[in-house]
Amino acid sequence: MKTLKIPEATIIRLSVYSRYLTEVDRKGIVTISSGDVAEGVGVSPAQVRKDLAYFGEFGTRGVGYNVKDLHHHILKILGLAQDWSVTLVGLGNLGLALSSYKGFRERGFVITSIFDNDPHKIGTQIKDVEVMSLEKLEEVVAANKTQIGIIAVPAAAAQDIADKLVASGVKAILNFAPGVLNVPPEVELRNVDLAVNLEVLTFNVGAQRF
Amino acid sequence: MKTLKIPEATIIRLSVYSRYLTEVDRKGIVTISSGDVAEGVGVSPAQVRKDLAYFGEFGTRGVGYNVKDLHHHILKILGLAQDWSVTLVGLGNLGLALSSYKGFRERGFVITSIFDNDPHKIGTQIKDVEVMSLEKLEEVVAANKTQIGIIAVPAAAAQDIADKLVASGVKAILNFAPGVLNVPPEVELRNVDLAVNLEVLTFNVGAQRF
Repeated sequence: MKTLKIPEATIIRLSVYSRYLTEVDRKGIVTISSGDVAEGVGVSPAQVRKDLAYFGEFGTRGVGYNVKDLHHHILKILGLAQDWSVTLVGLGNLGLALSSYKGFRERGFVITSIFDNDPHKIGTQIKDVEVMSLEKLEEVVAANKTQIGIIAVPAAAAQDIADKLVASGVKAILNFAPGVLNVPPEVELRNVDLAVNLEVLTFNVGAQRF
Repeated sequence: MKTLKIPEATIIRLSVYSRYLTEVDRKGIVTISSGDVAEGVGVSPAQVRKDLAYFGEFGTRGVGYNVKDLHHHILKILGLAQDWSVTLVGLGNLGLALSSYKGFRERGFVITSIFDNDPHKIGTQIKDVEVMSLEKLEEVVAANKTQIGIIAVPAAAAQDIADKLVASGVKAILNFAPGVLNVPPEVELRNVDLAVNLEVLTFNVGAQRF
């Protein structure tokens, strides 16, 4: 198949569809229409069809989709047909919250190592994972062939951690530290800014102004 | 002006532009082109112009934008020409992380009250804010005329908290608990699912498959 530029909004909606299909499948429903999916998640049926159309023909016209097939298809698109090994760097309040965030494991993101520089934290266990010294990051991440790094350290330390993650072979970095990080183009980087979520809300609260 | 449906991606980009303009303004730069903004944040100049065009004519063709004016214009669009009073409900790891998240205050989101049901937490101070019992939520939020509620409680308690926030007059809710919440249509609700960020990354890592 050829390379297409897929809008990020489509990827995020696919993620929402797949969560909805998990529920639908649990209820034992076998077949679903794009209209059902649309209603379930609150978008238009045309949007559902358009999002899916990026990835080729799927489903049978007039019959709809087999729930399990559609779910598997979307998970494959999202790269979730496999589990991903994730390292978490930084065990402050946010790191602690992320270390026990159930949504990661449910979607196949398995935290396999945790690093911090606080001697009181090093050696403790979070679920089954031992918190290790930052000095061991490169050795452990490379040995585990960890694919994804989550940066939850203060801004001043973030670039150094990003460099170490890249040197250790991670393919993708999710960064919660403020500021701009530099990584080579072959490494996917996503910056999470939690305030943006509030700004979408305040825009919508005030949307009648336009 | 008439009501337009603005794509969420546009709102999120406006938020990114405004952060970039904060930096540019700090450097003392007076005028900026859409091309400069585009390069600074990594989108196309046409995208910048299209995003701004939703909100009417702005800037002078061939001259570009006055940095301060453009910045103020975007902040106004985002509803950030004012501060917002925010209540944080739930002081687990995530709540603790959110309570000290610098990005909120910088963007005008001021946490004015914090609620939890843990007797060990009630009465303690987070920065200048006293942690209060959940029993006081409705009284305090209504008295403060708090506009935004952040839900960081376990899923089982989230709907009850949402109902109380709505009854107390909040206009918008940012929900970190998993699952679907019901709120009346006049209240803006946004669900944050941190795993979605990882899914955008894994999609991009595997994007050559399509």
